Amino acid sequence: MPIQATNDFVFVIREKAESEKSGIIIPDQGLEKPNQGTVFTLGDLIQDKNIKKAKNKKCLFFKGTGFPIEYDGIEYLVLTSNQIIAIL
Amino acid sequence: MPIQATNDFVFVIREKAESEKSGIIIPDQGLEKPNQGTVFTLGDLIQDKNIKKAKNKKCLFFKGTGFPIEYDGIEYLVLTSNQIIAIL
Amino acid sequence: MPIQATNDFVFVIREKAESEKSGIIIPDQGLEKPNQGTVFTLGDLIQDKNIKKAKNKKCLFFKGTGFPIEYDGIEYLVLTSNQIIAIL
Amino acid sequence: MPIQATNDFVFVIREKAESEKSGIIIPDQGLEKPNQGTVFTLGDLIQDKNIKKAKNKKCLFFKGTGFPIEYDGIEYLVLTSNQIIAIL
Amino acid sequence: MPIQATNDFVFVIREKAESEKSGIIIPDQGLEKPNQGTVFTLGDLIQDKNIKKAKNKKCLFFKGTGFPIEYDGIEYLVLTSNQIIAIL
Amino acid sequence: MPIQATNDFVFVIREKAESEKSGIIIPDQGLEKPNQGTVFTLGDLIQDKNIKKAKNKKCLFFKGTGFPIEYDGIEYLVLTSNQIIAIL
Amino acid sequence: MPIQATNDFVFVIREKAESEKSGIIIPDQGLEKPNQGTVFTLGDLIQDKNIKKAKNKKCLFFKGTGFPIEYDGIEYLVLTSNQIIAIL
Repeated sequence: MPIQATNDFVFVIREKAESEKSGIIIPDQGLEKPNQGTVFTLGDLIQDKNIKKAKNKKCLFFKGTGFPIEYDGIEYLVLTSNQIIAIL
Repeated sequence: MPIQATNDFVFVIREKAESEKSGIIIPDQGLEKPNQGTVFTLGDLIQDKNIKKAKNKKCLFFKGTGFPIEYDGIEYLVLTSNQIIAIL
Repeated sequence: MPIQATNDFVFVIREKAESEKSGIIIPDQGLEKPNQGTVFTLGDLIQDKNIKKAKNKKCLFFKGTGFPIEYDGIEYLVLTSNQIIAIL
Repeated sequence: MPIQATNDFVFVIREKAESEKSGIIIPDQGLEKPNQGTVFTLGDLIQDKNIKKAKNKKCLFFKGTGFPIEYDGIEYLVLTSNQIIAIL
Repeated sequence: MPIQATNDFVFVIREKAESEKSGIIIPDQGLEKPNQGTVFTLGDLIQDKNIKKAKNKKCLFFKGTGFPIEYDGIEYLVLTSNQIIAIL
Repeated sequence: MPIQATNDFVFVIREKAESEKSGIIIPDQGLEKPNQGTVFTLGDLIQDKNIKKAKNKKCLFFKGTGFPIEYDGIEYLVLTSNQIIAIL
Repeated sequence: MPIQATNDFVFVIREKAESEKSGIIIPDQGLEKPNQGTVFTLGDLIQDKNIKKAKNKKCLFFKGTGFPIEYDGIEYLVLTSNQIIAIL
């Protein structure tokens, strides 16, 4: 069964950062890189028109936001739409 | 008498998790699995259109949300609509 | 003089629980049974359409909510409409 | 000069309780009796239609609400409209 | 230059209480007398229609509300419109 | 480049009080004199119609409100529109 | 991929202050100079019409506001629209 997010929730499949993927730790320059992920499903009460059209697009969100869950073997990050700062 | 939920309340009949049913404890991988249940009755003040159409459908909600009650021998979990994160 | 509730107040005539009536204490199974009562008068500012039509119907509300008063020899529980969780 | 209440204020002339009037103290049964009074003047921003039409009618309000003032030798209780629970 | 109040501010020229004027202290009966003053200028964002028409009229307000200022040699009390309880 | 204030911000060029200008300290009578300044630029989200038309006019605001900044060699006080109490 | 800000977020590319650029420290006169930057991308939910038209324009914002991030090698300051005080 496909998941349909409700309210202003956004289910995102989070991308691992390069450093997490390669195993090579790249020293950062002290500036926060926002997390990145792909929008999977969007609630009906979202108001921003760019987020509304963002299904399957990539988005940026601040680190530490969202709530990780697992459903049907897939890991999602559940964000509210105001935790998304940009669509790529 | 059938129950009609009011306001933005949602009465859900909660599903037991697999591990609760079988008695076999499956070690989890540290990721929260949201609770799951079937929508029984919905209040009149709910705004999300996917929740409004969710009678008899399954839904996901964060663990620890909702208020368990018993009425007429049936156990319900009373949620407010903003505690529901997805319709399945 | 008939009482007309105001604002979003609901005057309910509370039903005694079975155990309170019979004097026999039935051991409960640890699940909260919501209180039950009959709607007597409803304020003008209630928004839920099922509550608006609930005069003389039974309703459920969480234990511990509402404010008991006595007027003209009758005991009422004064609830706000958002404390009512279902109409029966 | 007549007083015209403003905002959502309601000026009520409070009735003394029977026990206060007679000097005879009737033992109560532990249930709160709401205070009672006559509506004198009503502000323009009141929304409840039953309160709007309540000039010279009696009303109920919870004990301990309102602010007693004296103007031109008359004692008023100044309530906001949401402190009134019923019109009689 | 005439002063034009802004927002929901009301500039009131406060009347001294009788007891303050005469120097004779009249023992009060324990009931608060609201302060009284004359409305001088009214902001554009006031909603109550009786306050809107109250220029040069007398008004009542609770003691201890408002902020006294002096401008051009005149003492004003700056109230917000919700601090005014009646127009006389 | 001219500055265009945003939101409900008001940039004011503050007038020095007489006592600050002359160097002569006039003993005050214990009453707060509000600060005074000239409106320089106004944000788009201001609602009060008298403030909206106040460019180049003088205004009053409570002492201690606003945030002083310096831009291009000029000192401004940045107020939000609800900190302005009157237009002169 | 171009970044599209969401909600009421504004991505700004911050200008270094003169003193930061030249290496010469100019003693300030005790007055806060607001930070300055160029608007890069704007969310869909911004209401102020001057901010809405500010793409590629310079803006002022209070020091200490905003959240610095790095994306694709560029440093942005993520502000909400109400943290912007002027467009230049």
